[in-house]
Formats: sequence, C-alpha cells, structure tokens
Amino acid sequence: MNGKGVAILGSTGSIGRQTLEVIAASQDRFRVVALAAARNVEALAEQARRFRPTLVAVLDESLAPELKGRLEGTDIRVSAGEAGLLEAATLGEAAVVVGAVSGIAGLRPVLAAIRSGKRLALANKEPLVAAGGIVMSAARQAGAEIIPVDSEHSALFQCLLGHQREHVRRIILTASGGALRELSPEELSRVTPQQALAHPTWRMGPKVTVDSATLMNKGLEVIEAHWLFGVPVERIEVILHHQSIVHSLVEFTDGATIAQLSQPDMRLPIQYALSYPERLPARWGALELAQTGELTFCAIDVDRYPCLRLAYDAARRGGTAPAALNAADEVAVEAFLAGRIGFMDIPRIIETVLSRYTPEPADALERVISADADARAIAHSLVG
Amino acid sequence: MNGKGVAILGSTGSIGRQTLEVIAASQDRFRVVALAAARNVEALAEQARRFRPTLVAVLDESLAPELKGRLEGTDIRVSAGEAGLLEAATLGEAAVVVGAVSGIAGLRPVLAAIRSGKRLALANKEPLVAAGGIVMSAARQAGAEIIPVDSEHSALFQCLLGHQREHVRRIILTASGGALRELSPEELSRVTPQQALAHPTWRMGPKVTVDSATLMNKGLEVIEAHWLFGVPVERIEVILHHQSIVHSLVEFTDGATIAQLSQPDMRLPIQYALSYPERLPARWGALELAQTGELTFCAIDVDRYPCLRLAYDAARRGGTAPAALNAADEVAVEAFLAGRIGFMDIPRIIETVLSRYTPEPADALERVISADADARAIAHSLVG
Repeated sequence: MNGKGVAILGSTGSIGRQTLEVIAASQDRFRVVALAAARNVEALAEQARRFRPTLVAVLDESLAPELKGRLEGTDIRVSAGEAGLLEAATLGEAAVVVGAVSGIAGLRPVLAAIRSGKRLALANKEPLVAAGGIVMSAARQAGAEIIPVDSEHSALFQCLLGHQREHVRRIILTASGGALRELSPEELSRVTPQQALAHPTWRMGPKVTVDSATLMNKGLEVIEAHWLFGVPVERIEVILHHQSIVHSLVEFTDGATIAQLSQPDMRLPIQYALSYPERLPARWGALELAQTGELTFCAIDVDRYPCLRLAYDAARRGGTAPAALNAADEVAVEAFLAGRIGFMDIPRIIETVLSRYTPEPADALERVISADADARAIAHSLVG
Repeated sequence: MNGKGVAILGSTGSIGRQTLEVIAASQDRFRVVALAAARNVEALAEQARRFRPTLVAVLDESLAPELKGRLEGTDIRVSAGEAGLLEAATLGEAAVVVGAVSGIAGLRPVLAAIRSGKRLALANKEPLVAAGGIVMSAARQAGAEIIPVDSEHSALFQCLLGHQREHVRRIILTASGGALRELSPEELSRVTPQQALAHPTWRMGPKVTVDSATLMNKGLEVIEAHWLFGVPVERIEVILHHQSIVHSLVEFTDGATIAQLSQPDMRLPIQYALSYPERLPARWGALELAQTGELTFCAIDVDRYPCLRLAYDAARRGGTAPAALNAADEVAVEAFLAGRIGFMDIPRIIETVLSRYTPEPADALERVISADADARAIAHSLVG
C-alpha cells in the first residue's frame, strides 16, 4: 500500500467527508489508516467498508457493538470511547491526523497526535481556542507540524510562507457575513434556524454555519490565528468580504499585502493540509477572476455582530476565558437550532456566561476542560 | 557612512526620482554612491549636490563639461558616455544598482552590474525584453540577484517567495487598462498625447504611460515575467483590473491563488527591491480594503489592444523578435507623443516593422543591439 497514512478524527462530519473526497481523488498519495466519529456508526461503517482503514473508533462506547456488527467479516479493528479516539490519533501508520471532531472532545486526541509527532491537519476549533498555549507548546516540544484546515488559516499559512514573521503588521481575516448579512437588526431577532443555515458561499456543518451568521466563527478564528501565527489579537482584524474568494490577507510593515484566493471549497485547504509542502492538481477551487468580476470589502458593524466583540473581549481577558466563550456559544447555538432561543439570544447568553465566569490561567488541560464544563453549566441554566 | 550603497542608473527619470525619495526616507539604511542620467544635467547636478555620491555620470558626453561646471567645488567625480554608465554600474561601493535608464542604452550597464555580482533592482524593460536569455544566464553565472522594480513583477516575486516553481500553473498580470480604457475604438483613433498621458492610477514617465494605454506595457511585462520567473508565455495571462490594487497573481496547480496588493505607488516596489529580504516601514502604499470597497476584474478585449497581441506574437517567435517589437514601439510612441502619428497608428507601425523583420537568435548582445537598430530604422522610415 502506497501513500501517506491519514487518520481522520471526525470522519462523518462535513470536514471528515470532504477529507475522504480529497483522498479518493488522490489514492496514490494518501490512504486512510483510521476513521473515528462521535456517534454516526452507520456512516462510519460505510466509510470503513469503502476505505478499509486499520482502525475505526466511535466515541460513544454504547455504539461499539453496533459498529462491530456492521463491520463483521472485515479485518478492521474497532475501538471505542476516548481511548478509541486516542488510539486513532496515535496509530503508528498515520503520518497525518485530521482533527475534525467538533467540541472539546477533540482536545485530548489532538494533543495526543501532536505529542506522537504526527502532522496535525487541524479543523477542530477548540484545541486552539480553548488550549492554544498548551497545544502550541506541545507542538514545539514534539516538533509536530500543525497545518490549519480552516480556509482562513490555510490562506494565512500560505501567505506567510517565505516571509518573515517580524515583518507582519496586520493579519486580516475575511468574513462572508454569513446567511443573514442582508437582514436588519429587527429581522435578525426573528430569524429561524433554517434561515441561519442557508450559508451563501460555504458548505459546512450546522454549528459553524450558525457561527458564521453571528460572526462568532470569525471571533474564534481571530483567537486561533493568534496562537497559530504568534500575532497579538490587537493586530488581527476582520473585514467583510461577501464573495468568500479572498480567504485572508497579511499586511507587512512596508505596506505590501499578500492574499490567498480560491473558490470557496473546503476540499482545497483540506488537500493542502494533507499534501503540504506539495501541491496536488485539484479538480476543484480554481478561480477565473474575470468571471468572478468583482470582489467587495467593507468594514464590520460591530453592533450588528456582538459575538465578534465578545470573542475579542475573551481573547484579551485570556486564560480560560476563550474556553468559556466557546462552551457558552456551543450551548447557545444548540438551543437556537432546537428552536428554544432566538438568534439574538445567542450573544446575550454568551455575554451573561462570561460576566458570571472568572477565568483562570489556561496552563493545564484539566483547567481548560473544567472551564468548558463550568461555562456550559451556566449556559444550560440560562437556556433552560 | 552607513547603509547599503546604491547606484542609480537613470536617476532623473520617474523611477530614479522616486528611488531618491525612498532613500531620503531611510538614510540610515541606504546611501547614494552613484547617479547617472542620459541628458538632464541640471537635475542630475542638483541630485548630486543633495545626495553626495562618489560618482555622477551623464550618457551624452557633450554635456560632461556642463555637469562638471555645475558640480564645481564638490569632490564628486564626473564621468560620461557609456563608459560613465558602466563605471557607475560597477562601482565598488555599490551593493545595489537600480537599472532605470530607459531604452537599449540601459542594456550594457545592467549587464555589467550583474557581472560584477551586484544586486540589480531592475526597472528598465529592455534588458529582459530584448536580451532576457543573456541577462538571466549572466545573473546565474555571477550569482547576482535580480529584484524587479515593476509593481507587477515585484508582486510576482513576493507571491512566489516560499512556494515551489513547479507548482505554478499560471501567472496573471493585472492591467489598469490605462488612460483610455473608457473610449470607443473610434474615439481611440482621435486620441491626443495629453489624453494618453493622463494615467488613472499610476505616476510614471510618458513612454510607459502611453504603453499602458496601448497595453504594450503589459505585453512587455509578459516577456519580462517569462524570463524572470522561468514560466512559458503561454502560461502568463493578463486581466483588466481598473483599481491597480492587486498588482499580480500566481495560480498554483492545486487551484490556490496568491496575490500581492497595495496602493499604486512605485516607491513601495522600489523600496522592496533595495531592502529585500528586509521590509522597511513605509509612509506610503498601505491599504485599507474597507475603504477601497471593491476590486474589479475583467477579461481583455484583444481587438481593442492589438499591441498586446503583437507582444505575445513576438514572444512566441522568440530570438530578436521582442527586441524589434520594443524598438518599433519606442519609435512609434515617440512619434505619437510628437503629434506625428495617431494613437491607433502605434500598433500598425509595430506590426509592419515585425512583418518586415526577420528575427535571429538572441544569443549575443551585438545581435540584440543591431536588431534594435534595424527595427528602429524600419519604424523611422514608416513614421517619416
């Protein structure tokens, strides 16, 4: 068997499925060695039968028997629980681990992958948002590469290649403005989950699509960019760019700006994170600017997007504040998607959680995980 | 005296004057060691009195006595003729030579600078258009760096840093479309030099401003990019971009595109060519995309810009054809600026020159120089 071994943590989600599309298109380059998912054993088993990994893991241990049953007659090993994810993340055959399990559940497996010196293709936000200091120092110690999968961070990674970090003046993240960008503040308060899930440019999972509409997504990306590229949040800006073609920009001290552009297609940054430093011919993402016609940019109206302000605030407070922010957002978005709160309640709940929460230093994984649990508990009490 | 020694060939032209502005703004980094100009001894002497170089040179030998007179009482050495330019280009104190003498006169001095291992900050088009093979192989042999000063090539240089050449799928040069981009073909035939000189975005010399309006400038840049970056002309495209903010783009094999942006200000690429690999804080060129608002792109109507087609044709014919193209263009633009021919006669004259001219291999400087002279003679006969 040829090709780089890839373990996918979160294979049944949007990023996981698109990672499998990328691998299917370059089977001479990559092979799937492990697949892990939280709960969707039907899809997981189907993927496993197609891609024949050494190992599959399901986070929810109660589903292990069903998964085993679905894979009967194959020689695929089945593992479960956090231990299962950790096994997938550290499998000897894996050269690259795709971290795409959503939520805090992705944190330990991602750290384990880094500590065993794997390349981490990182899509999961929590490891950097909640535990950026821990994750980055583990990567330095293990000499592990972290290649971001988010289109914005992949863009920044590409824009910074070959340039000196001390020449960076500003990082500028672009934001499409999400599904609700044309609505008035009044209309926003009556938005339904269906409206919020209709993203104008990107194909993504439900949580991140709602986060795109509130711009919390962008706030979390600011925090991630800070950790990934070592740039203070004060020098990371967000600009509205409706077409989602310019994925982000770096302005240097002499005034020159470098930008990365492509069609909005997650398979492009996923493939790059797997193939770097190579670039493989892709059947997707190519751009014809003459057809695109125009690229527009405008400043963000912070009043319209309170979640973005909350994210900057949490980043400035530091410690476990971003972990609490993220946990509160997860609970609030879940409640919104379940129809239990309104769209504009999302920032209200997060703000209340943060005002009731006292951050601690984010110097140990346990503190980060308990910050997540504490903030989640406060948020649940507010939602319920 | 501190700072990198800079020799400026063509110091009284637009690029030369802006180079002096850049140096004046960073006197701790750079110092002027030689100034050379074709004929404008008044400006040259004034520059010399201000910047106190070791050497000044004037190409027109008959003006040497006047230049000496103007610099009486200083210890600045005066030199003249091609020998003077060669002396300036190879001066021991010069670490960087700015090649901004226009026309074929810049060719030998630029080659001399390269052969003495200087960094060449190249603004002069002829060395690459007419003698690209000779110049690039001389640079390889001498281990001399060529850092382009043209905003488009500086952009491409920056976009390619840190990326692998074999991953380049396309180079895309942007063109503002010049001063006359809104006119109909009929109006174009009646254009006056004054109209053609009113460039909408860039502050440049008259020849290059007219070349911007015909897009010959872009055609010559395609040929230069081919030599500088080793990309075949078939993979170099031109796109209209009215705002002159995106200076050029590189598309890679995986569909990702890297672009360089800034305000249209030549001092930015000039400074970069002097300071590379450093970037110095600049008081110009910084971009606020939210203020810019929109960037537009459209395909080029080749019928409207026959000069661009002629340049691609000459590039494909190869050998001394681009030298002849460039010489014919220089004569035609001069005649247009003098009011002797119409705007749409420029491509007609170039096309006729090229149809009457048989290219030879561009393997020796003498052949390139005689190709220039031959094409010039044919063009003069057509104009006269």
